[in-house]
Amino acid sequence: MTMDFAATKALFHVPQGMIYLDGNSLGPLPKATAARVARTVTDEWGEMVITGWNRASWMAQPSDFGDRIGRLIGAEKGHVVVGDTLSIKVYQALASAIDLVPDRKVILTDSGNFPSDIYMAEGLIRSLGRGLELRVVAPEEVADHINDDLAVLMLTEVDYRTGRKHDMKALTAQAHAAGAIAMWDLAHSAGALPVDLAGCGADFAVGCTYKYLNAGPGAPAFIFVAPRHADRVKPALSGWLGHAAPFAFDLDYRPGAGIERMRVGTPPVLQLAALDAALDIWDQVDMDALRAQSILLTEQFIAGIEATCPDLSLASPRDPAMRGSQVSFAFDNGYAAMQACIARGLIGDFRAPDIMRFGFTPLFIDESDVAQAVAIIGQVMDQRLWDDPAFQTRARVT
Amino acid sequence: MTMDFAATKALFHVPQGMIYLDGNSLGPLPKATAARVARTVTDEWGEMVITGWNRASWMAQPSDFGDRIGRLIGAEKGHVVVGDTLSIKVYQALASAIDLVPDRKVILTDSGNFPSDIYMAEGLIRSLGRGLELRVVAPEEVADHINDDLAVLMLTEVDYRTGRKHDMKALTAQAHAAGAIAMWDLAHSAGALPVDLAGCGADFAVGCTYKYLNAGPGAPAFIFVAPRHADRVKPALSGWLGHAAPFAFDLDYRPGAGIERMRVGTPPVLQLAALDAALDIWDQVDMDALRAQSILLTEQFIAGIEATCPDLSLASPRDPAMRGSQVSFAFDNGYAAMQACIARGLIGDFRAPDIMRFGFTPLFIDESDVAQAVAIIGQVMDQRLWDDPAFQTRARVT
Repeated sequence: MTMDFAATKALFHVPQGMIYLDGNSLGPLPKATAARVARTVTDEWGEMVITGWNRASWMAQPSDFGDRIGRLIGAEKGHVVVGDTLSIKVYQALASAIDLVPDRKVILTDSGNFPSDIYMAEGLIRSLGRGLELRVVAPEEVADHINDDLAVLMLTEVDYRTGRKHDMKALTAQAHAAGAIAMWDLAHSAGALPVDLAGCGADFAVGCTYKYLNAGPGAPAFIFVAPRHADRVKPALSGWLGHAAPFAFDLDYRPGAGIERMRVGTPPVLQLAALDAALDIWDQVDMDALRAQSILLTEQFIAGIEATCPDLSLASPRDPAMRGSQVSFAFDNGYAAMQACIARGLIGDFRAPDIMRFGFTPLFIDESDVAQAVAIIGQVMDQRLWDDPAFQTRARVT
Repeated sequence: MTMDFAATKALFHVPQGMIYLDGNSLGPLPKATAARVARTVTDEWGEMVITGWNRASWMAQPSDFGDRIGRLIGAEKGHVVVGDTLSIKVYQALASAIDLVPDRKVILTDSGNFPSDIYMAEGLIRSLGRGLELRVVAPEEVADHINDDLAVLMLTEVDYRTGRKHDMKALTAQAHAAGAIAMWDLAHSAGALPVDLAGCGADFAVGCTYKYLNAGPGAPAFIFVAPRHADRVKPALSGWLGHAAPFAFDLDYRPGAGIERMRVGTPPVLQLAALDAALDIWDQVDMDALRAQSILLTEQFIAGIEATCPDLSLASPRDPAMRGSQVSFAFDNGYAAMQACIARGLIGDFRAPDIMRFGFTPLFIDESDVAQAVAIIGQVMDQRLWDDPAFQTRARVT
């Protein structure tokens, strides 16, 4: 059953008086989550204690919930599993990808990739000590660098700063034609737009659940391995819950079947309860309808800002087909301007050096919210509210 | 302020009619946890949304809570951080340890180590491809294998099956005398007995918080790095939250100060709320008093079982100084016997091939519980209740 967005909006708690355009950083609280988490704490952990691993299906949830996410990203059933953090899943996927092309040396990424992906790749390359090279190019130059020396193309589909969207299908095909492996980070894609991993032939994908998926602060990550690789990869992070028989306590590691081998340690049961509540909403969302509404909202926002705020320059692609579900504007005093917006109840965020970033999440943002956001930003710019010294002190986390 | 154990017992919810001797696998629910988690879900995530990272101190909790755990394990302040799973922390610690002794090839562990530690080591060794060797010996032979070719001594202090306790101080000193690094897994030590990492001169330590520490299913792990190494180690899992300036979004990784560099990705905020509530109890516990009470309970249990159940043979060391806070008995029909105990409300667990394992956790188990446990086991053995086919089918998780 599919819900319309007026219905989904009623399922979220957004604080009184707040226009929350930061669901691309941390999604807001679904109203059903508190009771769902309380049930896990009190009825499951409290009453079942150790037997909750079976009786409350805690042990099965990473795969079960993986499949529910899989529908949103076009993955084959049984090929997504939830766990760990996105950085850990990047490491796992990249290590497995490199293993599949042992004679090649280049990992290609772009400067719009999220820094942690790049840091994890650097750390892995250093550990492996096999002369691998991480090549970081500008986003628009990626296609030109896909050559026969490429081992792994490692990209984030939607740029966390600008919202620019890579062509996953074309780049994956180009990587494959060059004999390379394609690995995609869906941090700003999952729940933001339809993804078709199977249709694109992606080899590996990873993502997080605390942004558009609304599973809460510190919610676990997920990983996808294409069916053709799933029984071949040898996990670098070979933990006991990825073992073929974890409770046999063998001293030798034997990888579990398919995606199960990408599990590592004990799943985060309280975070999974929050993910379950969040997915109860997603289970009822049509991804094409979501995309259409996202484009409608971002177009409304861009038109509104450009009509009223000449000092802000669009940092996202103008063509909606080329961007995800966020819109960024560049402004020299962007940090202070964002603080002034926040003081008026409009929550977006700032990314260095000058990016004001706004996420458009149709599940709980509608046209009226966008109109109010445009009005607040207009006021901040018109009255030069960013020029208040109180807004110019950097917070530690933005 | 220190609480007595009658007072701590009142702070836990143990299901009606249950004697829970499995706190060494998953600790029971502290009564204050539900409200603490609900506060994080509703008041923090719900009302602060993204600003909770600062306003609710989510970002600081991994270090803050690390210090509270640090007191229980004798770590120097500022040298423990919480995050990820124990398997991931084993990988991180071992990779860093190996880096400190680049010319050596042997990692020594014992067959009583938890399998996931061994699997993670195998995976790391395979990734590094530097001809490292994992040498697995019997627990009593570890000291004889500490030679000048040793790179890292990697042990779990308390054996998960038998409760046998290594002499951390002596083995660490012996490893250091041989020029090696000593790394300890405290999964069955933290909250079970006093640990003195600083006094032993341990180089690295890791542990989990869902067993004796009672932080709930899937609670995060912790890692300790000795102050002399903390600013030298280069993390293999170099995630953005271990970066010196995570929110500068630099493309180059620069490790954070000291233990901060062992952070990887976004901390699991809901699990941390449960850890906070659990540590509120631990903050009031004297570890020497805990150890004395643990020995009293385990001695009572052993004496009771040996007086009434001649078919059970003690699989734990008889000398309380040589064991942790659990007692194991070997019995050929141990799996079915444990199921019969569970059916009567006595929860312990079974570990292949024949180990019936019982954890003694003074925070919520007292002498009366132990007497009841002895009576139930006596009844199971006396009436051969394990001979019921209903108890002989293996569950997937025990």
